[in-house]
Formats: sequence, C-alpha cells, structure tokens
Amino acid sequence: MSDDGSVGIVETKYWRFAEPPNELRLRSGVELGPIDVAYETYGELNDDRDNVVLICHALSGDAHVAGRHSPEDEKPGWWDCMVGPGKPIDTDRYFVVCSNCIGGCKGSTGPSSINPETGEPYALDFPMVTIPDMVKVQRALLTQKLGLDRILCVIGGSMGGFQALQWAVDYPEMVDSVGAIATTSRLSAQAIAFDEVGRQAIYSDPNWQNGNYYGGEEPDRGLAVARMIGHVTYLSEQSMHEKFGRRLQDREQVGYDFGPPDFQVESYLRYKGDSFVQRFDANSYLYLTKAMDYFDLAEDHGSLVDAFGEVDSKFLVSSFTSDWLFPTAESKTIVRALHANAVNATFCEVESDYGHDAFLVANQQFKDLVRGFLDQTHREAQQGVL
Amino acid sequence: MSDDGSVGIVETKYWRFAEPPNELRLRSGVELGPIDVAYETYGELNDDRDNVVLICHALSGDAHVAGRHSPEDEKPGWWDCMVGPGKPIDTDRYFVVCSNCIGGCKGSTGPSSINPETGEPYALDFPMVTIPDMVKVQRALLTQKLGLDRILCVIGGSMGGFQALQWAVDYPEMVDSVGAIATTSRLSAQAIAFDEVGRQAIYSDPNWQNGNYYGGEEPDRGLAVARMIGHVTYLSEQSMHEKFGRRLQDREQVGYDFGPPDFQVESYLRYKGDSFVQRFDANSYLYLTKAMDYFDLAEDHGSLVDAFGEVDSKFLVSSFTSDWLFPTAESKTIVRALHANAVNATFCEVESDYGHDAFLVANQQFKDLVRGFLDQTHREAQQGVL
Repeated sequence: MSDDGSVGIVETKYWRFAEPPNELRLRSGVELGPIDVAYETYGELNDDRDNVVLICHALSGDAHVAGRHSPEDEKPGWWDCMVGPGKPIDTDRYFVVCSNCIGGCKGSTGPSSINPETGEPYALDFPMVTIPDMVKVQRALLTQKLGLDRILCVIGGSMGGFQALQWAVDYPEMVDSVGAIATTSRLSAQAIAFDEVGRQAIYSDPNWQNGNYYGGEEPDRGLAVARMIGHVTYLSEQSMHEKFGRRLQDREQVGYDFGPPDFQVESYLRYKGDSFVQRFDANSYLYLTKAMDYFDLAEDHGSLVDAFGEVDSKFLVSSFTSDWLFPTAESKTIVRALHANAVNATFCEVESDYGHDAFLVANQQFKDLVRGFLDQTHREAQQGVL
Repeated sequence: MSDDGSVGIVETKYWRFAEPPNELRLRSGVELGPIDVAYETYGELNDDRDNVVLICHALSGDAHVAGRHSPEDEKPGWWDCMVGPGKPIDTDRYFVVCSNCIGGCKGSTGPSSINPETGEPYALDFPMVTIPDMVKVQRALLTQKLGLDRILCVIGGSMGGFQALQWAVDYPEMVDSVGAIATTSRLSAQAIAFDEVGRQAIYSDPNWQNGNYYGGEEPDRGLAVARMIGHVTYLSEQSMHEKFGRRLQDREQVGYDFGPPDFQVESYLRYKGDSFVQRFDANSYLYLTKAMDYFDLAEDHGSLVDAFGEVDSKFLVSSFTSDWLFPTAESKTIVRALHANAVNATFCEVESDYGHDAFLVANQQFKDLVRGFLDQTHREAQQGVL
C-alpha cells in the first residue's frame, strides 16, 4: 500500500432488508424482497451529521469506490482518484457512502441472486428495476441501516448522475446538494440504440438461454461484444486517435487475414471485452441498460421543469467537451430546467479529450470543481444557510 | 413503373476475366482468378466517349444503382434519387457504370463464390481484398470489357469515396474528375473500432463456423448485430431524435420486460438487422470492413500530399454537417492535401441532419452540387480544357 491519499484497506459490507412480508414495491408494481445491499463507507460521520457524501455508480461500477480490499489488490476502487484523505471528496472531512445498485451483480440483489421462492437464481424472473427503485433502496440503506437523514451531496457520473438527479426529485428534504456529472435527464434515442444493440449481442449468444445460464456456460461472447460497443461510445475519436491512431498491433504491416488484430485499437477492444466478462453478469447488463433507457424525468413529471418543481438542493452540473454520448447540450437542458425553478445550479463544461469516460479519469479542472463545490456546500451547511 | 426520371427496367450484367493462368495479382501478393464482375450501365456512350460516369458503391451497396429489375420490384436501385433521366447524374447525358466490388456478395467474386480449386465456396480461403484491388478490377472492366479509357467522373460516398480517391491516385491518366462524398483518406481509430465490434459479433455467432457456413445455418444473428452497430453510426443523434425520439413502439407505457421493443428506435434497429441478413453475406461483411480498415492513402505513399502527387483530376469533395463517422474535418484534410498539389478541388459541407447516410438521401443542395459539378466538368472536357 503506497497510494498517496488512499483510504487504505476497505471492506464491502452487506445489509438485508425488505424481508417478506415487507417487500419493497418497485415502480413496475412488482414487490421484491428480501433485498441485499452491498455498500462501503469511508471517513467518519461528524457530530453534526452534516458531512455525508453519497456516491452513485455508473453501469459497470460497484460499491467499491476507493482503496483496496487487500494489500495484494491490483487495482483500487473505481473513483480512487477522487475519493480519499486530502482528495476532492476528502475522507478526512466527509463520510462517504456508496452502494451497489439493485439489479447489479456486485453484492446487491440482482438477476444472479437466489430467488427465495425457487432456490435458484432469479434470471429473467427478476423484476425490472428503474432508477427511482435504485434510489429508494439507497434511501432505505441510509435511513434504516446507517441512521442518516441528511446528505451533504449526492454525486455520480453517467447512470450515477441519473440517480443523483432522482434523489433530488424524490427526496428533496434529504439532499443538500447534487453533483450531476456527464449525465442527462433522459436517455437519447442514439444512446437507447447503442444499449439495444448491446442487448441484442447478448440475446444472440446461444449460451444466454433466455437468461437461464447460471451454473452452465455463460454468454461471454455476447457480453463481450456488448461491452465493446459500450466502450467505443465512452471514448472520443480524439482520445482513440491519440491512444491508438492507426498503429499496428505487434506487426510491421497489416496481416491480410482474420487472425490476430491488425490494429492496436482492435486488440484493446478485445481485451476490454474479455476482461469485462470476468467481472460482470450478462443479465445484470440487460437490467441496468433497461433501467437507463427507461430514465426520463420529463416524461415522469410532465416536463423537466415540473420534475424539478420540489427540488430543494443546490446543484453542480458538469459535462466534458469530448463526451458525445451525454453531450454538454444535455447538461445545459438540466441547468435551464433548474434555473426555471430558481434552483442554485452551477454549470461547468470541463475540457477533456477522454469522452464520456472523462469523469472517471484524474482531471485537475474537474477535481478542483468538485473539491470547491463540496467545500463551499459544507461551509454553507455548517452556517445553516442551505 | 411510375417513377419520374427513372432509368426504367435495368439488368445486371456479368463479365469474367483473370482466367488462369492470367490471374489478377492482389495487393496482398495473392493471385485471384477467374474473377466475375457484376455491373450495370445506364445511358449511352457518346461519340466523343467523354461522358462516362463511374459510380462506386459503399459497404452494403451493389451494382444496382438505379431503376428496377422488374416492374414488380419493390425498390429501385440504391442511388435512384441521383441517377436517371434529368437527375443530377443525368442518364440522358452521361454513360453511367457501376460494378459490385470484389469481396462483395452481389454477383462479383467474393468469399461466397465457388473456389474453382475445390468446387466449394471460398469462405475464408478467399484472399483479403483492398480498395486498390477493387479499383483494379473496375479498371479491367472499363478498359477490357467496355473499351473505355477515359472517365468523366468517378464518384462515390463512404467506401465508394475511398475507391474514387484511389482511382485518381492509381490511374490519373484516366480520370477527369472525382466526386469524393462523405469519405476520408483513411479510416479513423473510432471507425476501425466500430468495424471490429461488428466483426466480433459475427465471429461470436456459433453458426459462423470460422466462415464455413455455406449450405448450413448462416450467422444471421451475428450479422444482424453487426449491421445494427453500423446503422447507429450512419445516423445522427439529431435524425434519430426527430425520427424516433423516445416514442414507444405499439404500447402506452414501457413494458418492464425483455419482450417486444419498448421504443420505436429499438424496433427499427431490429428490423434493419433482420432485413440486412436477407440480402448480405456475413463473410463479405468481414472482408469489406477489413478493406475499409486497411485504407490509408497517407501510409501507402508516405503522406497524403505525396499520395496526391500525380493526381490529374479535378475534385468535388463533399461532407455532411451531421456525419460524425466521416466528419467534415476528414474531407478538409483531403482538400488541403489536394490544394498542396495545386489540384482544382471544390469543397462543400452540405447541411443535413441525416448523418453519414445523408449522401444516400435526396437532398436538394447536394443534388445541385453534383449536377453543377458534372455539368461544368463535362463542358470543360468538351472544350478540351481538362
């Protein structure tokens, strides 16, 4: 362990709730229970209980935001560049919480979990979950398990940003501020299209077996293709040009064959696809992309301005110049609807070549932005002006 | 037949050349023969033999540019909006030729053709073909079969534009002018990445059988996914927003299931994927995308300026505002390299929301552009000033 500013060795914890007959009623009308929630916390809750930062993860993320699970861990958590002692989300100051969303496959209940009624994995018998459902479960964790009724900031990028927005809409009384990063208030037709093609790749894998693959061969090829599609959309042409260009992979000239990859970018994609299937469940990929597709605050409330009608949080809305999946225009739509409700919303478009993935990458401008926003919000909270 | 300005009922013709022992030597060094070429012609060669327009098709195109094969044909050729009597590529004035490129599956020799050495389809024994190889075959058709040694204009969009550029580079003495539409002088890392993901979808289909599927179950699912990926990249977010937005498909609210598509855009993609597999061969998709990936005029000649060193044609280079696959910047790169060689090159970025597919869609500005360019070029040819 030599990470500067690391939270150190951390542990994923688990909490079970919604035990029958007290199941959680999901948006679809279906009742689900019991529900396990995997979560991690870093830092300490202060005496005023006003220093809670709730982090919401994106499609492929999990509760393991920062630090390592053991000294041998090869990689730290997915937002280690942002979270730790002295870092922008400073664990010396804030009590940080993140939970794996339901529908996922990293410890919270999802399609790969055991259905207590059958003793077998749910597979497609798992009910469809939505962003509001994910948030409802997070709220249960905070209020029922952790005894928290006030959040200094809910922050997340991409699908994590959906949840952060949903928190402010559904539980305005709990949320002092929101960090909505590289996100949108509803998925575009193009983004739905890419999600659908990824799902089709999974459906097309004969190992998928209509979702009933647990214990047998898994639909790794389909999931790998889905991940590759996603990955191309998370990068920018500029970053791919700089990282790979048309450089060849381990060869002097193109191979004129369909064997090993000709170009580095092909090799990279194959690697990304193959490594993803080691850590992710194909059915969870289906459920979470559907949850993203369904997300539409304007549709739910008549208009986006109406959706934000009860909002009582301040906002940091941030996009990245090269993000073409959730482009700046969509962040501006959020900001306009907040301003129409006289909500205090700061907007910043951060310069970055890293595309949609930019929020995951150390970026000084973005770090400063988040650090400053949290610092100011916390001071306001302590002064009682929020 | 009630199409205004249609070329009417047309017929695909076939020509065989490169019969052993006179095989064609491909860029990879492999010799291929015999080679069948499927082609169509419209209009009449004039007495001065100066009115030849050669059209080059894109990835999913073929020799059938305009008109119908029978009165019952549901659809005309793929560029019927541009080609016919009185149309921008006016068959009352020009002698129009288009051939299916080798490696394809619409009558020209490709991986689904019979390998004369085995009596079985080539499958992956078919040699890799490149853009220069496609052009070499077109040249053979024009010079050996049609007796043409001068082309008023070689025009094509996307992969057709690659061929048009390659013509001007490889056979400058034959080409009066080039229409390079929605194209690039080399495929970007992002475009290679999308191609590779499409290929991976095909490789992942167990019916693909390493290419040996002829006579059995075909890798339709993989090819459909590949086509869907391609299709999303051919559209713009703007056009998808206008055409589909988040409108639901035959339902009042989302289904909370993985059954029928929730959104119209999903239904559209499934339809596009399913209909493509009826008319295209998966191995051809692999070969043609590889040919596109390999295309790099700068790499072949040291630099793009050097590539255009012997060019003796005038150019129309045209891009479309919403085309993010082959964006305007890549057309400008071509124009700059042409201008560095004092080549007469006109550039126009056409306003369109249709993305990369814009060149296939009737667009008045683009029609006027092509009509004017051909008209002026033909007058210059007749005046002997070219």
